[in-house]
Amino acid sequence: MFSADLLAGIRSRAAGYDQTNSFFDEDLQGLVAAGYLRALVPVEFGGLGLTLQQTTRAQTLLAAHAPATALAVNMHLVWTGVARSLHDQGDHSLDFVLAEAGRDEIFGFGVSERGNDLMLFGSTTDALPQPGGGYRFTGTKIFTSLSPAWTRLGTHGLDSSDPENPTIVWAFLDRTDTGIGVKDDWNTLGMRASQSQSTLLDGALARPDRVVRQLPVGPNGDPLVAGIFANFEILLAAVYTGIGQRAVELAVAGAKRRTSLKNDGRTHAQDPVARWRVGGLVMAMDGIYPQIDALARAVDEQTWQTGPAWFTQLSGLKYRATQNAKFVVDTAVQVVGGSAYNADSELARLYRDVLAGFFQPSDADSAHGTAAASVLGPIDQGPVDLRSS
Amino acid sequence: MFSADLLAGIRSRAAGYDQTNSFFDEDLQGLVAAGYLRALVPVEFGGLGLTLQQTTRAQTLLAAHAPATALAVNMHLVWTGVARSLHDQGDHSLDFVLAEAGRDEIFGFGVSERGNDLMLFGSTTDALPQPGGGYRFTGTKIFTSLSPAWTRLGTHGLDSSDPENPTIVWAFLDRTDTGIGVKDDWNTLGMRASQSQSTLLDGALARPDRVVRQLPVGPNGDPLVAGIFANFEILLAAVYTGIGQRAVELAVAGAKRRTSLKNDGRTHAQDPVARWRVGGLVMAMDGIYPQIDALARAVDEQTWQTGPAWFTQLSGLKYRATQNAKFVVDTAVQVVGGSAYNADSELARLYRDVLAGFFQPSDADSAHGTAAASVLGPIDQGPVDLRSS
Amino acid sequence: MFSADLLAGIRSRAAGYDQTNSFFDEDLQGLVAAGYLRALVPVEFGGLGLTLQQTTRAQTLLAAHAPATALAVNMHLVWTGVARSLHDQGDHSLDFVLAEAGRDEIFGFGVSERGNDLMLFGSTTDALPQPGGGYRFTGTKIFTSLSPAWTRLGTHGLDSSDPENPTIVWAFLDRTDTGIGVKDDWNTLGMRASQSQSTLLDGALARPDRVVRQLPVGPNGDPLVAGIFANFEILLAAVYTGIGQRAVELAVAGAKRRTSLKNDGRTHAQDPVARWRVGGLVMAMDGIYPQIDALARAVDEQTWQTGPAWFTQLSGLKYRATQNAKFVVDTAVQVVGGSAYNADSELARLYRDVLAGFFQPSDADSAHGTAAASVLGPIDQGPVDLRSS
Amino acid sequence: MFSADLLAGIRSRAAGYDQTNSFFDEDLQGLVAAGYLRALVPVEFGGLGLTLQQTTRAQTLLAAHAPATALAVNMHLVWTGVARSLHDQGDHSLDFVLAEAGRDEIFGFGVSERGNDLMLFGSTTDALPQPGGGYRFTGTKIFTSLSPAWTRLGTHGLDSSDPENPTIVWAFLDRTDTGIGVKDDWNTLGMRASQSQSTLLDGALARPDRVVRQLPVGPNGDPLVAGIFANFEILLAAVYTGIGQRAVELAVAGAKRRTSLKNDGRTHAQDPVARWRVGGLVMAMDGIYPQIDALARAVDEQTWQTGPAWFTQLSGLKYRATQNAKFVVDTAVQVVGGSAYNADSELARLYRDVLAGFFQPSDADSAHGTAAASVLGPIDQGPVDLRSS
Repeated sequence: MFSADLLAGIRSRAAGYDQTNSFFDEDLQGLVAAGYLRALVPVEFGGLGLTLQQTTRAQTLLAAHAPATALAVNMHLVWTGVARSLHDQGDHSLDFVLAEAGRDEIFGFGVSERGNDLMLFGSTTDALPQPGGGYRFTGTKIFTSLSPAWTRLGTHGLDSSDPENPTIVWAFLDRTDTGIGVKDDWNTLGMRASQSQSTLLDGALARPDRVVRQLPVGPNGDPLVAGIFANFEILLAAVYTGIGQRAVELAVAGAKRRTSLKNDGRTHAQDPVARWRVGGLVMAMDGIYPQIDALARAVDEQTWQTGPAWFTQLSGLKYRATQNAKFVVDTAVQVVGGSAYNADSELARLYRDVLAGFFQPSDADSAHGTAAASVLGPIDQGPVDLRSS
Repeated sequence: MFSADLLAGIRSRAAGYDQTNSFFDEDLQGLVAAGYLRALVPVEFGGLGLTLQQTTRAQTLLAAHAPATALAVNMHLVWTGVARSLHDQGDHSLDFVLAEAGRDEIFGFGVSERGNDLMLFGSTTDALPQPGGGYRFTGTKIFTSLSPAWTRLGTHGLDSSDPENPTIVWAFLDRTDTGIGVKDDWNTLGMRASQSQSTLLDGALARPDRVVRQLPVGPNGDPLVAGIFANFEILLAAVYTGIGQRAVELAVAGAKRRTSLKNDGRTHAQDPVARWRVGGLVMAMDGIYPQIDALARAVDEQTWQTGPAWFTQLSGLKYRATQNAKFVVDTAVQVVGGSAYNADSELARLYRDVLAGFFQPSDADSAHGTAAASVLGPIDQGPVDLRSS
Repeated sequence: MFSADLLAGIRSRAAGYDQTNSFFDEDLQGLVAAGYLRALVPVEFGGLGLTLQQTTRAQTLLAAHAPATALAVNMHLVWTGVARSLHDQGDHSLDFVLAEAGRDEIFGFGVSERGNDLMLFGSTTDALPQPGGGYRFTGTKIFTSLSPAWTRLGTHGLDSSDPENPTIVWAFLDRTDTGIGVKDDWNTLGMRASQSQSTLLDGALARPDRVVRQLPVGPNGDPLVAGIFANFEILLAAVYTGIGQRAVELAVAGAKRRTSLKNDGRTHAQDPVARWRVGGLVMAMDGIYPQIDALARAVDEQTWQTGPAWFTQLSGLKYRATQNAKFVVDTAVQVVGGSAYNADSELARLYRDVLAGFFQPSDADSAHGTAAASVLGPIDQGPVDLRSS
Repeated sequence: MFSADLLAGIRSRAAGYDQTNSFFDEDLQGLVAAGYLRALVPVEFGGLGLTLQQTTRAQTLLAAHAPATALAVNMHLVWTGVARSLHDQGDHSLDFVLAEAGRDEIFGFGVSERGNDLMLFGSTTDALPQPGGGYRFTGTKIFTSLSPAWTRLGTHGLDSSDPENPTIVWAFLDRTDTGIGVKDDWNTLGMRASQSQSTLLDGALARPDRVVRQLPVGPNGDPLVAGIFANFEILLAAVYTGIGQRAVELAVAGAKRRTSLKNDGRTHAQDPVARWRVGGLVMAMDGIYPQIDALARAVDEQTWQTGPAWFTQLSGLKYRATQNAKFVVDTAVQVVGGSAYNADSELARLYRDVLAGFFQPSDADSAHGTAAASVLGPIDQGPVDLRSS
């Protein structure tokens, strides 16, 4: 998949992108050249035809070399994964995504909005129907990974033209549209190279053949939504797992390097308590891989069934993988000791990068809510008096 | 596999066995009648020919109905699983186990010894070579599950007849041997129905054709050892996962039953914080199943490779599954509230049962040590001065 | 305070009371004889005149010898502590409690009701006003510690005779009243010797001079309520801290006794990882003592101020102390190893006893709610739509 | 102590110092002008004569405004605190520190060395005795807070001139000495304004009257060592507690600001799960303050007794306070949500700052080791065979 050179180059550039808060241009060129952005595109569309399982492993490996690069590429992979899933189910409404990705178009994921914790099921962006079936979108999307590079943007908005039947509209925009602006406002603690800037939609037009869904507001199991959910959560889990994997490597190297005067100058690799910590890291990582594999394989083999249990498994996987990566990085820092606290240390960067996992969907609250509902049913809709809680 | 009646009966008897500290006789008869003790025995030996993966799922289900019953049966399943693994690898040294299990002999697992944390790789039991190739074993084995019922005992001891080349001898004893005594000394906080009493070996004889291995002292990757390790850890993980599964069911039922005056008499199933806890339980359990599946399938498909990483995955699985079950039970208790604290509540029993997972091999220290060694190598053998640590 | 003989006797009887689920009669006689039930009663009322700080330390010591005994006595100490607090503030409405306790009357705490998570601020017990100012109480109180022994019962109920102004009535009942019944229904996982049975009030009469408060329904800072809150939470923290203290002693003893074949037969006291665990236990306990001291001293010196921060500190202390004790017991069990799992081991009993701390007020939810409200203000009272959470 | 203006200025400059990786010059001038560096200096030496307890509270407050500023000032406070402790005990060997600090000399703490986990009890710096009783020090000290500003450096080194009796020499150097160099090498993930650069000692001279101790190598309870230990650990706990305190303020503000579409646009301050988290933060902080108070008061009132229990309490306090601050910051980040991930957010800086607490002495391993030894005694000195662990 990736040549050793490509990976080495990607790792060597990560610190620089982070420091200058700049986009991973050179990485992206290398990945495009290697055909990686066509990983999930079927062979008949000019792609590599990899399975989702294979792709998650590649994403883990990539993230272990440059988390922000993997995270940004993830969004393109999500759209191609969704399109492939639908295609495999006999739904060809997103085949154009496969065709275009096969011709090296790059897809951005323009869904997140400030304060919108309904995520896929609500929107603060206006979707105005146009004669002939197109839509014009107006609103601000945040966290649009790949901002400097995407050429197509998958997005959603609320069509409230019929107040009785508001609908969520899903469509794809073309970067060349004049109604699209990009704010240069990405300046985060970590994951800096992803340059996930805000996107300003000011009547941006989606052509009728790029409008792929009109869905009722609120949770639903439409194959598009289910496809986004599955590909998004699984691939995100793979990325954060790569951070954890790399943190273990750095912990092992650190333990072998760090010496102890207390212990006659031996390394911490010989210290039983440091070994205990490292053992804990290894076991923590071992527990995640089969979880990613299992859900990715379910997608590949179409053995999943849309429903509360499936959504719970998906958001749960992302939750566990990001929590795990956070634990692993925090512990690796302790194993390595003071040198990990240098601003230039890779582990210090991972400590900043890994935190992003707290904020990306499904966040902890959303994941717990979905899981609870899967066994307790929905919460009552009547007035709840919580005065004394 | 199990009829609804069988399972219902098993669940209905669990509290009684626990209270009277008595063996799960009736359960065992039912399981034998259902052929369950022949689950892992190939069809050609009169068994059901289930895979290990199928069997782990059955064990989880069984443990969700009666943890101690599942735990005790586990030991017999380990021996038959080991014999089946060897058989599949073309090693027929334990085929007699399959043949006998196919004829409803019941196998006990007589390995644990007080203070022996070397486990499979050392022994305080004496194995005295006999003319013709047999051995006489003298020593005390503890935690011999199925004490009242086993008819064959797989065991190990140290043959130090050649002081230069001490060896660990593995063999099977027949219950009818006069050198075998059983102490009625099982009185534990939980897992009481397993009646895992101490076994006194006083020159108990293993016939030459029942002596299956003579191995060097210390860690090694002999297929017998690897087979025990794999079947033991995976099946144990399945049992404790069944406890967790049941605890979630009880938590869900409890949340739906328990009311809150604060919340106008609504149930805790409507309380956001209780829902958060229940959601956490569901996600915790979801994370374990694919881990068990993955390793069981590796055994079934013979895709594992003996080595530090494989042993780490195995003991890590058991460690994570037991830790997870403990977390789940402790949290379920909080969800259910005060009624869980009744001595008669099923959850109070699970709270006692689940703790046994801390003590069974591989314990936390052993699992961490194995995992650390897999990436850091062994600890130095020279004199270590830990004076000031 | 306690003679060595008294403490030794109390410890020696704890296992027996637990096993037979019987009341700590002989302990109580010894404690009464030692004057301990008059600990918080001022000297002028015939008491020992100890401070609350001194009494918390005594309760910790007592709990380290017999948790259930300390827990049951706690309830009597709460009432005498409340009465003393009020007396010190110049409020003599509960002086009769001090006078009677000085004459060896024993006070029970009859407040808890099934499903009443409003605790002090609501009640499902009916308080019917009587001519002349007395009240008749009808309802069921649960968890009435000291059931076999109390002679006076402090209790509360709801007077809804004026539907516009329902009030919570606080009063003391005499055991000799014919309207009082005790159900022999105490059969819990732990804390068995406390015999905290249910109390059936069937028109039980409180004389006018035993009716001490009529308060509005809902949270308020009346000195009686504040006094109960303070004495209850602080003394409870002291009891669970005693369990933790004892668990550390048992862990230390276990580490010194348990040997390791892996480590050439040395004890676990020489094992760096076991030492790490024990060190963690010591540090965990060290963190709790000053917290109890600080709040008890605030009560003794009347430096507290009723308000959200004070209530938060109180319920927070109880929460932290019980969580800490749970962590300490669970970890101590790991240090000691398999022998802790004997049904007869003291640590196995502590493992059962310590769980009670989850259920006693303030429970985790209540403590978090109080703490949140202290900085975020109350939750809105309008209709909340949580449909999608 | 601090004027509102001083604190506001300090907070306003913190982000800038952090970004430019520059020393807190202006803060320091303000603190010196306010007399704060004389906080612990007795009045008769021209100081403010504050107690250690009062000073810890001031340090917590200062850290809540600028963690790195408080951390750097801490080191000067440690030396003056030690000198004051000794003075109060009738030991006048460090009175010159009080006199000089009273004249606004600034003291650096030059003890840490790379790989020296023996800390106060060993050194890789050479201390060469000079005729007349002085010493020349050669070696590299790391983490010398206040590097740009200190005028006196308290340090230690190993005098191995008598191979039979190596001693640890404690002395104070004058910044004007030509044997002192400072490397401009401070570039850390957090706590950047402290500019805790490396100090190169190349035969730096301590005059005979500035050599304050010659102690045997290894643990000992000399009042100087005990004084450093106490003042260092307690003041460090106070600093990290300030970080936690500020994180709670930011979490509260964030919860009140952040809105939820799911919850009809209400703020997270109205969300029960967010409230649960905030309540947890408040309770976590409440648990630390009395711990700091209690040990500081013990120092002030000289009620401590040198010994394993006292050292355990001290390093335990620092351990618990830093762990607590880490938990609080990580949780506050979750409460605030995505906006906390902006590089410019104060919470993102605290997330970086708080990690330093993992590395400063006593680190987790040292604290656990000390605590374990206090109850288990020292680890055996004989050869330990850990081959199989």
